[in-house]
Amino acid sequence: MAKVYLVGAGPGAPDLLTLRAARLLEAADIVFHDALVHPDTLALAKKARFVDVGKRYGKVSTEQRFINRALIEAAQSHQTVVRLKGGDPMLFGRAQEELDALREAGIEVEVVPGITAALAAASTLQVSLTRRGIARTVTFLTPRVGKDETSSEWLPAAIGADSVVLYMAAGASQAIARELVTGGKDSQTPVALVESATLPEEKQLFTTLETLAAEAMPRASGPVVMCVGEVFRDRSSVAELLERCRTG
Amino acid sequence: MAKVYLVGAGPGAPDLLTLRAARLLEAADIVFHDALVHPDTLALAKKARFVDVGKRYGKVSTEQRFINRALIEAAQSHQTVVRLKGGDPMLFGRAQEELDALREAGIEVEVVPGITAALAAASTLQVSLTRRGIARTVTFLTPRVGKDETSSEWLPAAIGADSVVLYMAAGASQAIARELVTGGKDSQTPVALVESATLPEEKQLFTTLETLAAEAMPRASGPVVMCVGEVFRDRSSVAELLERCRTG
Repeated sequence: MAKVYLVGAGPGAPDLLTLRAARLLEAADIVFHDALVHPDTLALAKKARFVDVGKRYGKVSTEQRFINRALIEAAQSHQTVVRLKGGDPMLFGRAQEELDALREAGIEVEVVPGITAALAAASTLQVSLTRRGIARTVTFLTPRVGKDETSSEWLPAAIGADSVVLYMAAGASQAIARELVTGGKDSQTPVALVESATLPEEKQLFTTLETLAAEAMPRASGPVVMCVGEVFRDRSSVAELLERCRTG
Repeated sequence: MAKVYLVGAGPGAPDLLTLRAARLLEAADIVFHDALVHPDTLALAKKARFVDVGKRYGKVSTEQRFINRALIEAAQSHQTVVRLKGGDPMLFGRAQEELDALREAGIEVEVVPGITAALAAASTLQVSLTRRGIARTVTFLTPRVGKDETSSEWLPAAIGADSVVLYMAAGASQAIARELVTGGKDSQTPVALVESATLPEEKQLFTTLETLAAEAMPRASGPVVMCVGEVFRDRSSVAELLERCRTG
């Protein structure tokens, strides 16, 4: 009775894994994992064989159909199969395609949630995404920008929400800021960019939509979430003040 | 050097706590917790004193100012103070007020993210909130409905998003469904109501906005998230089919 577990590995720091995920990794016979999963997390799977099916910006990724087929084959020859995905498996990423393929093959699946990058960023920024009196709606999205793409698919959800966190926004933050201002967001809306949230190399940058629209950001080496909304104003003022003290 | 940790307890099941949260509970001298935190989670804090500051629908809640003051006092007389909150501390709830009060008092604070109910529900439903080709935007919100309230604060974010998860929606699901349809959501949009997600007493109910708008739901005894969007269609068809097999 093999079972496949689609498990969220969390945002980066290995101790932001859930207890359930840790237990499943310890029991795993084989682990399929993304490129960005922390080595200390993988090290929990002491008796497992590892298959790196990672996708990473700019690198060749393992084809989704290959992953689906490999998971089914693994379930036929192993007891406990873990598919470890960065963040939460049910938010972005392509878990549904793996789920559907496994179900069609008659294989039992369990999904284990993980800490998603947006909430990790909010924790590390110490900013509530739903600060009372300022925000009661939060939108997470992956934007598309560029001449072959349309913002109509994601812009209304971003414009309508008080707090917005954009995933996979690293390369396009300038174009996104422009779209948001054109779409109706106040150009003075604070923005916090968080790179590699919860890892030692984490970087935070505070700006506004107007400034971001005007100048391109330096290239990021880790995953970036772009947090937009009034709730980030206090935090960004504190950062600005500290910067002013430092520079004299 | 006392420190206060604002820690997410996760959605319900005690093994959906993070490793970091478990370690902090073990080290805690005093734990302030919500009403709905699982007893097995509290049991991890072996040497701690417990203060229940829980709020629960329909019951008298501890006043926020009292909690703020109690946390500051605890930090003055204890080493490791844990404030344990259901779900994630930076999404809904009133963590920001506690954070601000502690910061003003010059007390060091760390925030530890937790699994939020919406993502727990998505995992247990085995539905990706961002299924490729169907949804790329997700909105979380707490609705207000009723004659003294206005839906203008939350409706645009819900209408603009592909997938919507409404927290604290239990008592008002019928009114919410009506607002969503009036606001422009297709009346045939699938809805999944998940009560007490990840606990043994979890209940799932699949319906549509039209049906939900027409008939009131039975009163829930646990917290409910209301999941709205096309991504829930497949799951709801499966449930419907099973129901038909059973009754027919």
